[in-house]
Amino acid sequence: MSGTDSTQQPVIGGPRVILIEPQLGENIGAAARAMLNCGLTDLALVNPREGWPNQKAQVMASGATEVLDNARVFDTVEDAIAGLTRVYATTARPRDMTVRVTTPRHAAAELRTAWQAGEGLGILFGPERSGMTNEHIALADTVISVPLNPAYQSLNLAQAVLLVGYEWFAAASDTPAERLVETGTQPADKAELVAFFERFEAALDQGGFFRSPDMRPSMVLNLRAMLQRANLTEQEVRTMHGVVSCLTGSWRDTANQRRHRGEEDD
Amino acid sequence: MSGTDSTQQPVIGGPRVILIEPQLGENIGAAARAMLNCGLTDLALVNPREGWPNQKAQVMASGATEVLDNARVFDTVEDAIAGLTRVYATTARPRDMTVRVTTPRHAAAELRTAWQAGEGLGILFGPERSGMTNEHIALADTVISVPLNPAYQSLNLAQAVLLVGYEWFAAASDTPAERLVETGTQPADKAELVAFFERFEAALDQGGFFRSPDMRPSMVLNLRAMLQRANLTEQEVRTMHGVVSCLTGSWRDTANQRRHRGEEDD
Repeated sequence: MSGTDSTQQPVIGGPRVILIEPQLGENIGAAARAMLNCGLTDLALVNPREGWPNQKAQVMASGATEVLDNARVFDTVEDAIAGLTRVYATTARPRDMTVRVTTPRHAAAELRTAWQAGEGLGILFGPERSGMTNEHIALADTVISVPLNPAYQSLNLAQAVLLVGYEWFAAASDTPAERLVETGTQPADKAELVAFFERFEAALDQGGFFRSPDMRPSMVLNLRAMLQRANLTEQEVRTMHGVVSCLTGSWRDTANQRRHRGEEDD
Repeated sequence: MSGTDSTQQPVIGGPRVILIEPQLGENIGAAARAMLNCGLTDLALVNPREGWPNQKAQVMASGATEVLDNARVFDTVEDAIAGLTRVYATTARPRDMTVRVTTPRHAAAELRTAWQAGEGLGILFGPERSGMTNEHIALADTVISVPLNPAYQSLNLAQAVLLVGYEWFAAASDTPAERLVETGTQPADKAELVAFFERFEAALDQGGFFRSPDMRPSMVLNLRAMLQRANLTEQEVRTMHGVVSCLTGSWRDTANQRRHRGEEDD
């Protein structure tokens, strides 16, 4: 799925994403892409195994290298969270600890509220294979656990960043749940629509579509309901007028040809 | 993030995921993993470029090969959606067409309702590089567009599947937004908690913590509020009793040692 519009200003800021001992540069690059997808730009790396900077991270992060270029490297998680006031740890299952666990959606709402209040925020992600240790979880206020198929929960690092970041972005997105994407044309005025309905039905009358007068009212209602559901635009109503003209023209032509050939209409 | 529990029954079923002309086997494998993460198991491949079956898809899908093993291959999108009654197309930006566009969350709610009603459902994903064509979009009822940073929306195939699938899973998940994950121990009974408060405060009285009697009531309230926020478990209240015993024991021991050395308490 592509669709980056480079004329748009990037959405930036948000909680610090803290990758603890990430193993592979590629995964750091993929996480940076997922961050930028979600308007997150503050990346902290704790003791990355392959060192830093990392060429493989740069290659993988195509288009999101600004996130890598501004990344900071720390020796410990404690250093990476210094200056923050609220820290979440992302993990599938904390063990042998009593901890507060939230969904990404609930965490995102909390993070947005805290962000508005000017708090310093961070989200911890553990190493790819071994995941978060209890020592790291104990540095966080709250655990984020993504609800997924309990029989198959394993996510790679970038996917975990993406799902948590997606909820962060969605929590402040004003995208309507449902909309009609239009192309320079307006929704049809109801008067235009009704005028089309009447012309359409007149053409159907002429063509003998409503074979029984008893059936006509309900057939008309069903046709109108069907066309209403399509939410026609002004342009589409004009198109439909053209369709009717074309089809009735064909009927006339066919009828004329038949007359020329001396046949009767049937 | 790991955490698959292989003793859990997988969540299966859901809408058909239809990958249109996927270019690389690795991407098909990664998409299969994302599907199984979200309890989706019905995979359709339209004209996969590298043919089918594909060894690279198998390797990438580790743990989710059951999705690949049951995948069906079709020559056309029309064939892949035959038998379905409702089809969504996932794309960042439909062009030059007036189409109904929803968020993944809204689509997931609609899909769950239709699934309950027994409808056959499908979600289309376009090829990795070129994305969905308008011809494919015109086969769908509705477009799903993921709200992301407008300056950086590009997702890989598996990530698009993951975000749409995540919303499908979340729409029926009964995971509470917030919970305390405990480890075989109960939340503390309020009587136990109050008994601990009183013992704690008595120890503080003895140690001279409340220097001014005027300040004691508000200091006590603040201490209680702080401990209430921690939502202590039964076990943790016992632990805190031990902490108080230990610390008051230290004071006593220190006082005794000083007395042995002929010093005064200070």
